[in-house]
Amino acid sequence: MPDFSTIQKISFIGSGNLATNLALGLQKAGLRIVEVFSPDKSHARQFANLINCTVADHLESINTESDLYLIAVPDDAIEDVGRSLPQFNGIPAHTSGISSIKSLASAKNHGVFYPLQTFTLRRKVDLAHVPFFIEGSDNHVINALKVLAGKLSDNVREITSDQRKQLHLAAVFVSNFPNHLYSIAENILEEQGLGFDFLKPLIRETADKVSSVSPASAQTGPARRNDRNTLEKHLEMLEQYPEYRKLYQLISEQIKKKYHE
Amino acid sequence: MPDFSTIQKISFIGSGNLATNLALGLQKAGLRIVEVFSPDKSHARQFANLINCTVADHLESINTESDLYLIAVPDDAIEDVGRSLPQFNGIPAHTSGISSIKSLASAKNHGVFYPLQTFTLRRKVDLAHVPFFIEGSDNHVINALKVLAGKLSDNVREITSDQRKQLHLAAVFVSNFPNHLYSIAENILEEQGLGFDFLKPLIRETADKVSSVSPASAQTGPARRNDRNTLEKHLEMLEQYPEYRKLYQLISEQIKKKYHE
Repeated sequence: MPDFSTIQKISFIGSGNLATNLALGLQKAGLRIVEVFSPDKSHARQFANLINCTVADHLESINTESDLYLIAVPDDAIEDVGRSLPQFNGIPAHTSGISSIKSLASAKNHGVFYPLQTFTLRRKVDLAHVPFFIEGSDNHVINALKVLAGKLSDNVREITSDQRKQLHLAAVFVSNFPNHLYSIAENILEEQGLGFDFLKPLIRETADKVSSVSPASAQTGPARRNDRNTLEKHLEMLEQYPEYRKLYQLISEQIKKKYHE
Repeated sequence: MPDFSTIQKISFIGSGNLATNLALGLQKAGLRIVEVFSPDKSHARQFANLINCTVADHLESINTESDLYLIAVPDDAIEDVGRSLPQFNGIPAHTSGISSIKSLASAKNHGVFYPLQTFTLRRKVDLAHVPFFIEGSDNHVINALKVLAGKLSDNVREITSDQRKQLHLAAVFVSNFPNHLYSIAENILEEQGLGFDFLKPLIRETADKVSSVSPASAQTGPARRNDRNTLEKHLEMLEQYPEYRKLYQLISEQIKKKYHE
């Protein structure tokens, strides 16, 4: 039985925003990132330059001495990556919100190391309070990944693949979708020669207030008040944007229904 | 011509979250809040206790010595309030995002004093960087309101009623609607026995990142990647929530169209 108690050497498969942010955080926490593999060679070299590690030419020829292989690749590639890895004693673990732990079942010891956060190009994320969700093929793996995540964040928890999927779905609602709404607002203001900057204090306060008030009690706005005049004026103003109008109508209907029926 | 150059005494008509936050900020900035009127007497008394001012029994009998009458009432009541006010030399100004300055045209001097922010019960908002949008019936009024807003915030600008309406519409997209999405996520997680707390670092980072990256480049997630497997899995998971499913589908379609057509 290999000793997982202290993960020290880590390899990365994948070199995107998530991989880069994790690698920087792990390095800062004293871990050794030894190697990276990515089908996009120039991407892998960028990662290797930043982190100061080697680049593997093929998945099959990856260094087999690492304690952990963090797999941060598109979901539909995880299973293939798992099957293409050479024999080693280390743990392959994926970082996906939606893929089951079973997608790595071709390796005896395997796990999941999922940080619930959005990682964007050229933006370094502070991992200190990011929730890390852990799964493992057995208790040794679970403990090893928990200890590792604990070096990055004060917010580490073991959950099932099904719970992780629900968190991932919820994350789309609180991150990807609000960002799309920000982008609609940016378009509306641009058209008027008004800067998106004016909205930044409001965006921040809207996000901050749900840290102390539940979103259901924090709801404000014309739909919440069932203020028909304002709702009508807004819909008129949106006549030149049929798609934004449709979205405005659907969300407003849902808010009205929630608070006024 | 009354001297508007230095507003010192202020009365409030309306005693809700916006009025309370403004009054606290103005008081801290050295202004004197002398009186409040609200049709809801117990609400008015709460405001008066907090701010230490008198309560007017009727709109018609309001103290006529103030330099400014800040009107923070529902939009459809502004015009009536304007017409019911007694004769005075001070400026009535409303705080609405959507109402035209003309709704106060029954008074010779009048204006708009609109803070672009969300004000929620029992939450004190820092006004220092909140954008204040000013309109006035003439340059004296505009200058007086600009000087006043400048005592609260470093972000003061004169705009037209039409531009203000666009800002108000954009504000719904970046504040009221994201909050509704937060509340959907809370419901989904509750059903699974998972806490909304897990989403807070993600919500904060999503809001923070658009202060340095435009929302269009900050977009991430399955729809942005056109990741059909994940989109399908999420839609399956939403089968028990037909309304959330409809919203998920509409927003995802719009994101896919924007980045992949």
